[in-house]
Amino acid sequence: MDNQQNRTEIAQLGEFGLIRKIKSLANQNIDTIKGIGDDAAVFKVNRENVLVSTDFLIENIHFDLTYTPLKHLGYKAAIVNFSDIYAMNGTPKHITVSIAISNRFSVEAIETLYSGIQLACEKHGVDIIGGDTTSSEKGLIISITVIGEANQKDIVYRNGAKPGDLIAVTGNLGAAYMGLHILQREKAVFIANPEMQPEIDTNNAYLVERFLKPENPRSFIQFINNENIKLTSMMDVSDGLSSELLHIAEQSNVGFEVFEAQIPIHPNTEAIAEQFKMDPTTCALNGGEDYELLFTFDPAFESNFESFEGITIIGSIKPKDFGTKLHSKGKNLYDIKAQGWKSF
Amino acid sequence: MDNQQNRTEIAQLGEFGLIRKIKSLANQNIDTIKGIGDDAAVFKVNRENVLVSTDFLIENIHFDLTYTPLKHLGYKAAIVNFSDIYAMNGTPKHITVSIAISNRFSVEAIETLYSGIQLACEKHGVDIIGGDTTSSEKGLIISITVIGEANQKDIVYRNGAKPGDLIAVTGNLGAAYMGLHILQREKAVFIANPEMQPEIDTNNAYLVERFLKPENPRSFIQFINNENIKLTSMMDVSDGLSSELLHIAEQSNVGFEVFEAQIPIHPNTEAIAEQFKMDPTTCALNGGEDYELLFTFDPAFESNFESFEGITIIGSIKPKDFGTKLHSKGKNLYDIKAQGWKSF
Repeated sequence: MDNQQNRTEIAQLGEFGLIRKIKSLANQNIDTIKGIGDDAAVFKVNRENVLVSTDFLIENIHFDLTYTPLKHLGYKAAIVNFSDIYAMNGTPKHITVSIAISNRFSVEAIETLYSGIQLACEKHGVDIIGGDTTSSEKGLIISITVIGEANQKDIVYRNGAKPGDLIAVTGNLGAAYMGLHILQREKAVFIANPEMQPEIDTNNAYLVERFLKPENPRSFIQFINNENIKLTSMMDVSDGLSSELLHIAEQSNVGFEVFEAQIPIHPNTEAIAEQFKMDPTTCALNGGEDYELLFTFDPAFESNFESFEGITIIGSIKPKDFGTKLHSKGKNLYDIKAQGWKSF
Repeated sequence: MDNQQNRTEIAQLGEFGLIRKIKSLANQNIDTIKGIGDDAAVFKVNRENVLVSTDFLIENIHFDLTYTPLKHLGYKAAIVNFSDIYAMNGTPKHITVSIAISNRFSVEAIETLYSGIQLACEKHGVDIIGGDTTSSEKGLIISITVIGEANQKDIVYRNGAKPGDLIAVTGNLGAAYMGLHILQREKAVFIANPEMQPEIDTNNAYLVERFLKPENPRSFIQFINNENIKLTSMMDVSDGLSSELLHIAEQSNVGFEVFEAQIPIHPNTEAIAEQFKMDPTTCALNGGEDYELLFTFDPAFESNFESFEGITIIGSIKPKDFGTKLHSKGKNLYDIKAQGWKSF
């Protein structure tokens, strides 16, 4: 946990005291009519539809506090939720934040967690309008629900990809997974020798930050709306490219081909993957937690993307009976198959 | 847990299998455009404002599976959330249900839990539109977020009570708390002698049901809207009457007096309280979990309530400097004070 000078026990403050502290977080949306403090929050929606998504984050399942600063954890917890709204081409507006904590956490620790959530909210114009705080039997549990809005015609689902569409991604993939490996290596070194300082040099810092403090590719969302570009499907890359491609294929009832040589991988990701004797493509395909956007569009829009940096076309949608294929750098054709789920 | 004939391990099905099973829950609201299965759920709101509330339910903190059937737990988890929307004079429309489970739970157990949630949803016209499922390090954790709607002029907050307003409640209070005591007694008997069958007779059944399977006083909400009765404040009774009265007093910046003799207590509550050598008024004031509604209104509306059964006027709102008082049956005047919070 952070180097806290002060430690106030949660019991000293009580739940209502904690709620009062959290409640003091100002609402910034003019649409928020009532935030924390009544039976329910109240707000106004200005567009046709409401979007809702929710995520559970459980200590030692989804995060490890030995290498995750609480402020980063809060920031990421919020960003990961906003990501689901952006992936529908919507705008996140409100979140509820529920936390359950064991008595090993101080009030200051929880305030640090909230400060990270609040930082993400300020960046994205989102209000914290509610939540629940309670004790847990073990560890820290965070449940966030995000509510956004969009006009019906603008929403991009996973099920609209058509044969012939191009497949593209924002940013680069596999970096967060490599960042996680660096952190796990430093943790192992630290456990073996607690006197040892973690060694996170500048090259590694980029990867570690991709894991600990992901960002939403919001500028891409603004770009496609400004340019009136219609996407046929979109989703965020949270579980790894393979898994997300298969979701789009299944829901759109299509097949696809992607080219290994075109998958965008950061040079630092390649360098560190080599150190770990891992294949960077595997990191991109199966790593996850990049929170980039995967999307498809009619080739007629291809030239529209030229003015936007950081988009890479990685393949195209095929009829269903084509299957789900990867062209390797060695010119071989592989099937992309469903991976098991890590959580169970 | 329930007497399950079959036991399917969660790992056999995987998260996506579990999501697919849950996804098969049909949506009944025509406003639900997209339920489970994309990055976010999508729906339409027909009234001016959206209402949101959320609750965490953690095993051994909020519920005890030794005497709580999973179907009841699911039902109650949903009802408790709907209660927050009704307490604003809103209509619950959608919920997200996130669960974290240790591997001690089977797929069948989780389906039983969901069947209870679904039953409550069907009764109240609410759709399950999303959620997250994951493993936990310990026990069962449920996080539900409910989304409702209301027109702005109809919403009843906690902060509108005015001196002279009457204070009333629906139903009766303290019954759920007595039900909990009966269950805890039977658990203690069972732990002492596992051969012994629990003894829950008909009188007790009412109280146990009030605890395990609370209902929302929705007919009251329909009544006040049909009759165009304006309430000045309202909230649900989840933590006990004392605590809720103090919330209304604090948020409305007023005082109040209530009369012990007028607090509605069910005869079974009185009978069982006597067995336990407890004061039934204390059960009503501090027990909680009744999920009745506490509300205030201008005395001009008093006669409008005559045609509705099950409303009891228990006192009136006073200026702030009057304080927060209880007139006992023995004609003494006591201060109602804040209780500590049980959760920490």
